[in-house]
Amino acid sequence: MTPANLKLVSSVRCFNGEQRRYEHVSQTLNCTMQFSVYLPPQALRKDRVASVLWLSGLTCNDENFSSKAGAQRVAAQLGLALIIPDTSPRGEQVADDDAYDFGKGAGFYVNATQQPWAKHYQMYDYISKELLNLVTDALPLNGQMSISGHSMGGHGALVMALRETGRFASVSAFAPIAHPTECPWGHKAFTGYLGSDRELWREYDAVELIRDGKKCPPLLVDQGGADNFLAEQLNFTTLQEAAEKHDLIAQLRLQEGYDHSYYFIASFIEDHLNFHKTYLKS
Amino acid sequence: MTPANLKLVSSVRCFNGEQRRYEHVSQTLNCTMQFSVYLPPQALRKDRVASVLWLSGLTCNDENFSSKAGAQRVAAQLGLALIIPDTSPRGEQVADDDAYDFGKGAGFYVNATQQPWAKHYQMYDYISKELLNLVTDALPLNGQMSISGHSMGGHGALVMALRETGRFASVSAFAPIAHPTECPWGHKAFTGYLGSDRELWREYDAVELIRDGKKCPPLLVDQGGADNFLAEQLNFTTLQEAAEKHDLIAQLRLQEGYDHSYYFIASFIEDHLNFHKTYLKS
Repeated sequence: MTPANLKLVSSVRCFNGEQRRYEHVSQTLNCTMQFSVYLPPQALRKDRVASVLWLSGLTCNDENFSSKAGAQRVAAQLGLALIIPDTSPRGEQVADDDAYDFGKGAGFYVNATQQPWAKHYQMYDYISKELLNLVTDALPLNGQMSISGHSMGGHGALVMALRETGRFASVSAFAPIAHPTECPWGHKAFTGYLGSDRELWREYDAVELIRDGKKCPPLLVDQGGADNFLAEQLNFTTLQEAAEKHDLIAQLRLQEGYDHSYYFIASFIEDHLNFHKTYLKS
Repeated sequence: MTPANLKLVSSVRCFNGEQRRYEHVSQTLNCTMQFSVYLPPQALRKDRVASVLWLSGLTCNDENFSSKAGAQRVAAQLGLALIIPDTSPRGEQVADDDAYDFGKGAGFYVNATQQPWAKHYQMYDYISKELLNLVTDALPLNGQMSISGHSMGGHGALVMALRETGRFASVSAFAPIAHPTECPWGHKAFTGYLGSDRELWREYDAVELIRDGKKCPPLLVDQGGADNFLAEQLNFTTLQEAAEKHDLIAQLRLQEGYDHSYYFIASFIEDHLNFHKTYLKS
């Protein structure tokens, strides 16, 4: 059942399920990629299960969420698989930048049009097409999927949910970069990967997509009130205003005292997976 | 209330409590040390709470357990503080070794007698005396304490519970190095830190201390059946035999399929904290 292109790198038991790491050669990214998967006990008993796709933030790979969020406990209880991709193309031949917020570890879930990035930095298509097809073929998934993510990955989750109509049953995010066309992280990344065409930028901006009337699945967002990036980078209130104006089915919660770290994610991941479970058929 | 010697390095909200990191100059170790603390919401409301002291394994510092075990969720529910020391003295002036299993990150919770280690590697006294006095003075703890740990830290937890009679209400361990005088890790560490006097080695060997009739508080041990170190390093069955022969109040569980990683610890930390809670007065 496993495609020839897919290599199991490791598998360890976790909450009676399996935390796995896979490697494959991506045709979209022109490089070898790794990603992680959690299969709950139900999937090991050959049931096909629903899944949640998790997109990580700046500097992360597939291991941060896997090791720090405590998501497997809840996923095992709910019978959900977790699909956890990397955040950029990888390998020595892949163009990079010294900054933490551009290049490797910072793919921003866009299809780059500018050089030297366009050859490898096609993260939007990689995840929304190639990777989802691959895991659907290779793993005991039932096709029902929700999407979530953190910071840069929260941006990716919102954009993918808004653009891939009907693909995701629900969407959630922790401290998402909600309006990247109007913050320093987004400006830098979009200028670098996409050039100066601001019409193209809008296709990767959750607030702009909501304003354009794109249909959004049910939405949950948690934002820490003590997050150092809240004022300058995240545009939480702009997202709230857009969601309200366009009548999204949305809960956008400010969590007083919480920061931008995985301690914040761990504190609320159970809420998010329970939220997705209500929209996913098992 | 905080001693002048104690500096708060960071504090972030986690499950409505606080994950803190402290720094202090240790008189016992002759160097500056960091340690982590989780205070549950009950402690932030000024209640004095019971605590669990966690000793980490080889290569770890205080951050591995803090970020990977998922213990704060359970500690918040039970109203337990977590005290998480480093595993060795630190700093440029501290003697080190290139190996992962000796020197920094590998203090083995002993008081070294050999050079060049004796000046700084006094981890047994540091934790059992200096650090416990410090946190008892500085934090809202009620004095009730249990102890747990992983691998090298499981060894440390068992030895400390057996030697510090009456100090710990209960003891637990994940994959402990249960009989270090008879395994390669222990041989190397004890020869290096303690020299060739095997009578001194016995004071840091849980199985030998049990055989000597030391009183042990109620004990829970989990050992992964797929742990790569089980056969050569951990002596789980020797520990089982000693516990049985000496009528310890003990549960020693082999968990089929689990390895030596934090995915194993995360899967069973709730059991361990619930176990300790039954012996701790809040």
